[in-house]
Amino acid sequence: MTADRLLALDKAGQDLLFRAARTANTFTGEPVTDAQVAAIHDLVRYGPTALNGQPLRVLLLRSPESRARLLPYVSGGNRAKTAGAPLTAVLAADVDFHERLPELFPHRPDAKDWLSDREERVAQARFNATLQVGYLVVGVRAAGLAAGPMAGFDAEGVRREFFPDGRHEVLLLLNIGRPGPDAARERLPRLATEEVVRTL
Amino acid sequence: MTADRLLALDKAGQDLLFRAARTANTFTGEPVTDAQVAAIHDLVRYGPTALNGQPLRVLLLRSPESRARLLPYVSGGNRAKTAGAPLTAVLAADVDFHERLPELFPHRPDAKDWLSDREERVAQARFNATLQVGYLVVGVRAAGLAAGPMAGFDAEGVRREFFPDGRHEVLLLLNIGRPGPDAARERLPRLATEEVVRTL
Repeated sequence: MTADRLLALDKAGQDLLFRAARTANTFTGEPVTDAQVAAIHDLVRYGPTALNGQPLRVLLLRSPESRARLLPYVSGGNRAKTAGAPLTAVLAADVDFHERLPELFPHRPDAKDWLSDREERVAQARFNATLQVGYLVVGVRAAGLAAGPMAGFDAEGVRREFFPDGRHEVLLLLNIGRPGPDAARERLPRLATEEVVRTL
Repeated sequence: MTADRLLALDKAGQDLLFRAARTANTFTGEPVTDAQVAAIHDLVRYGPTALNGQPLRVLLLRSPESRARLLPYVSGGNRAKTAGAPLTAVLAADVDFHERLPELFPHRPDAKDWLSDREERVAQARFNATLQVGYLVVGVRAAGLAAGPMAGFDAEGVRREFFPDGRHEVLLLLNIGRPGPDAARERLPRLATEEVVRTL
C-alpha cells in the first residue's frame, strides 16, 4: 500500500492542499473576493488553539492606497510580487486575546487571569497565531487559491504603520491569488521522514 | 452560494480536516503505526517554510519506558490522556536547521550564512516549526486520526530529558490516535470573520 493510500483524505485533497500546491511568486489579475476570504476563515477557524484563544488577526490590503503603505517595509525581492498580488494579508497576533476568554473558554471563567503576565501572553499569542497561520495557508489552498508567505519585511515597521494600538505583533505577510505565469520555481527538496521523525 | 461551496476542497475533506475534526482527550487502544506516521509526514512535508528550512523535528514516544520519562513533565490535567494515547509526539524545532540549507535551498548557497546569529535563528526555527505544527495537525486528521495538542507541560524539562544536545527547542506535545469514548467536549465558540478579518 503506497503512503497516500493510508490517508483518509482523497488524492484530490492531498494534491490540492500539499502535493501539487506551490508557493506563488506571480499572480493573475483575478480578484480574491471578500466572500472567498470569509469562506476560508469559516473553514480554518475550527483549527485548535490553546484555551481556544484564537489570537490570529488578519488585515487585508486590497486598495492601492493600503498597498502603497506596505511596500516600503517589504524587502526588495518581495516587492514586485506583493505589488502584483490581488490581495496581501498582514497576519498578526492579538496580544490581548485573553480578554475574549470568558466567551471563548466559558467553562473556566478564570482562564483570563492565567494570562495576566504580558510577556508570557505575547509568547502564547505569537505561538498560537502562528499555528493558525499554518491552518490558514492550508485554507487558502482549500479555496483553490495560491498562497505566497513572506517573512522578508520590516515587521516592526509594519506594526507601527498598521497596528499603532500596541496590542498586536506582526508575524507574516501572505499574498493570495490565482497563480500567474511562472508562478513557482522548481520544487525544492524536502527532508525524508527518517531525518525528521525518531521513535523511542 | 453557501460558504463551503466557495471552496475547491470537497465537503468530506472540509469535515475531515476542520469542521467535524475535534481535539481528542481520550483514545482507543488501536495503535498508530509507523507507516501511518510516514504517510502523514510524506503529505505535510510539502508545506512551505522560510528558505525551505523545515526546522520541525518529531520525537515519537511509543514505548512504556519513553512515556514514563515524559509524564513527570506533563501538567496534572494532561497526564491521564497522555498516558492513554497510543502515541505522543514531542514537537521540537532544530535550532541548527540552517546547516541543511545548502541542500534545501541550493540556488542560494550563501543562505546558511544569513543565519549565523543564534538568537535570530532560534526565533526563525521556532516560528517555522510552529507553522509546520499547524500543517501536521491537519495531516494527522487527513489520516483519519485525532490530534490532541497540549501546551500544559514543562518545556524546559522535556528539552533536558529528550534533547540534551542543546540544539532543539520544544514547542508542543501532540497525542495521536483514534478518539475514544467522550473524546471531545462540546465545540467551543469560534470568532466570527468580522472579528478577525479587516480590509483596507
